[in-house]
Amino acid sequence: MREEFQAELDEVSRLLVAMADEVRGLLSRATTALLVADKELGEAVISGDTAVNDLYREVEEKVYLLLARQAPVASDLRHVVTALHIATDIERMGDLAKHVARTALRRHPAVAVPPELAKVIKKMADAADALAAKISEVLAHKDAEKAAELERDDDIIDELHRGLFVVMLGAAWQHGVEAAIDGALLGRFYERFADHAVNAGYQLFYFVTGEQLVRS
Amino acid sequence: MREEFQAELDEVSRLLVAMADEVRGLLSRATTALLVADKELGEAVISGDTAVNDLYREVEEKVYLLLARQAPVASDLRHVVTALHIATDIERMGDLAKHVARTALRRHPAVAVPPELAKVIKKMADAADALAAKISEVLAHKDAEKAAELERDDDIIDELHRGLFVVMLGAAWQHGVEAAIDGALLGRFYERFADHAVNAGYQLFYFVTGEQLVRS
Repeated sequence: MREEFQAELDEVSRLLVAMADEVRGLLSRATTALLVADKELGEAVISGDTAVNDLYREVEEKVYLLLARQAPVASDLRHVVTALHIATDIERMGDLAKHVARTALRRHPAVAVPPELAKVIKKMADAADALAAKISEVLAHKDAEKAAELERDDDIIDELHRGLFVVMLGAAWQHGVEAAIDGALLGRFYERFADHAVNAGYQLFYFVTGEQLVRS
Repeated sequence: MREEFQAELDEVSRLLVAMADEVRGLLSRATTALLVADKELGEAVISGDTAVNDLYREVEEKVYLLLARQAPVASDLRHVVTALHIATDIERMGDLAKHVARTALRRHPAVAVPPELAKVIKKMADAADALAAKISEVLAHKDAEKAAELERDDDIIDELHRGLFVVMLGAAWQHGVEAAIDGALLGRFYERFADHAVNAGYQLFYFVTGEQLVRS
């Protein structure tokens, strides 16, 4: 029974990492679509999100089966339910990648992001990507140090996010209200993507170690 | 056993409605804080969100107890786990009310929202409030018609949200980039609050009836 339980949990972990890899790919493609106004790529992100939703439902089904078959209690039960929370966070990351893609498509064939913002947006995207990549690492290494890096990585995003506003509110800003609104919303999408990645990472740490990391 | 199960589910419902009532109050106060630049009220929203988080944890604990004690299977199991999803949505609504309050505080003693936007924002807030109020109604009436109204109510929010952009991108807009950024982010906060309310309402319908409503 115990071995079966562990094997089913491992299967759930595998699905969660597959989800994280998917949304990582989506955000990366959405960012490219945004920075070079690539319509096909933007559309591919929007249709590609269904794969994430399918994986989400797979996690949900596996969790239901696990709960019904094994009737876990105490910390085992918490482990299992945590998988659902992680899946919810990652599923939302897919939605946020879609929002980035939609912003790109809304301005196509123009580039939604003026050059002054493109640099910060690219950095936010890279930092968000690094955060999503950590999800596999947290699973592979199961060490608290790796998971604790999540918070630091998120600080980088917050710093970049502030930098974005400095550019848009500066005297040199020549791109008017519409580009600033796009920039502000894009900043929020990347920041939320990163927030969900940090959440998922923390919970994944708990999921694989059974230990709660205290967030600073 | 069955009666006990139902009694515990009812207790969870009660907590979910208490959560919905809390976040409804938070958003209402946050909106007032925003429209009249009331610092104390804005701060009260931010500190008041802890009550929502406490209720969330209470739901979570009850759900864990229910799962451990009753080991429900099949549709009973889905019922119970749905409560967690609903709680997650409502908890997030509290965060969004906080974001509105923070926007108010960031511009205090100035009013963050120029008069041209105040009217639309107030309408969005009222529509979001009506959506949150539906959560108690869905629970009380358990009828599909009531729940189906959620989608229509959400359409109202989306329409208002578009109207907000029309104002900010219009030729008459005199308030510059900063107020437009605030307006865009505020619009997003209300829209997301409403989205979560619709989600929670749909899931609550499933929670109390065991029937899935098909979303149009």
